[in-house]
Amino acid sequence: MKLLEERIRKDGIVAPGNVLKVDSFLNHQIDIGLYNEIAKEFKRRFSDVNINKILTIEASGIGIACVTAQQFDVPVVFAKKTQSVNIAGDVYSTKIQSFTHNRVYDVIVSKRFLHSDDRILIIDDFLANGCAVEGLIDLIQSAGASVEGVGIVIEKGQQSGGRHLREKGLRVESLAIIDSMNDETGKIVFREQ
Amino acid sequence: MKLLEERIRKDGIVAPGNVLKVDSFLNHQIDIGLYNEIAKEFKRRFSDVNINKILTIEASGIGIACVTAQQFDVPVVFAKKTQSVNIAGDVYSTKIQSFTHNRVYDVIVSKRFLHSDDRILIIDDFLANGCAVEGLIDLIQSAGASVEGVGIVIEKGQQSGGRHLREKGLRVESLAIIDSMNDETGKIVFREQ
Repeated sequence: MKLLEERIRKDGIVAPGNVLKVDSFLNHQIDIGLYNEIAKEFKRRFSDVNINKILTIEASGIGIACVTAQQFDVPVVFAKKTQSVNIAGDVYSTKIQSFTHNRVYDVIVSKRFLHSDDRILIIDDFLANGCAVEGLIDLIQSAGASVEGVGIVIEKGQQSGGRHLREKGLRVESLAIIDSMNDETGKIVFREQ
Repeated sequence: MKLLEERIRKDGIVAPGNVLKVDSFLNHQIDIGLYNEIAKEFKRRFSDVNINKILTIEASGIGIACVTAQQFDVPVVFAKKTQSVNIAGDVYSTKIQSFTHNRVYDVIVSKRFLHSDDRILIIDDFLANGCAVEGLIDLIQSAGASVEGVGIVIEKGQQSGGRHLREKGLRVESLAIIDSMNDETGKIVFREQ
């Protein structure tokens, strides 16, 4: 997605440790116009896929999932990172290792919101080692539901998450895939799609 | 907002401890059609207010803030509950007591995304004792920016948060205000607006 790649080049910051900061437009401050275009692109890429629900994980996936849900006219469910007293007993749960925060989260979804006949599109902002998406797939499989696709805004192509998911036969659509980035020059190389 | 009150009566669950569960349509599973109507109602109520940014707090505020931002055509900034390695040094910070989770969070916003000339609309899903909104106001005041309004989906009118904010002269618009609820009968009484 050219508009997204241009925005990453313009406003993304490459930092040491293979970190790409896009917090000025994607995941702390949000450019809602860009979100609208991201949602339309997900709809275009998954136009042949019959889904009835979008699943994401808090926090930065939620906004993208909601705007994408407008395009598909389906509900969003977001998985929660800690047990809340406001969530009633019966939940599907899994553990997700966070690359960004260097810790393991318990992640839950109420059983009331994932059913065996659900056809689910997973949406998230980043895909790196794939732990978050693998965790969401685990929740979906616990419910006996099907994963119809995985929509990612930015995939770090140097890490293996995307490759592993595709090798399993999952349909993964990443709107920008970074093949390399250099924190000294700031140069970012995107994969041709 | 009648549509919202009807939905709360239909699908909200009153639980012991003054808990209202609306997780089937508002803050775990999300009815995007309802979100669209909520956003239009915020736009209608704040149509005379000149804002350039929406501020919310993760996680359940983000989706509502994004859809509302489409109506106002302004960016969203969401305050984060824990320090992330992906957020660079300079942040405004405050502490917020969570009624739901019975703990205190450090909440931060990057100084790059709040400026002294910002005119801000605060958006959140719930207002009870007001701790979250007070924390967001603290962040805004730290930046020297102005709070132009506070838009809340559900206010628990039995708790003092909304009254305190209005006594300070803040413009608070709550789309549904609950004056009382009974966890034995399930009866919910809304304030006339």
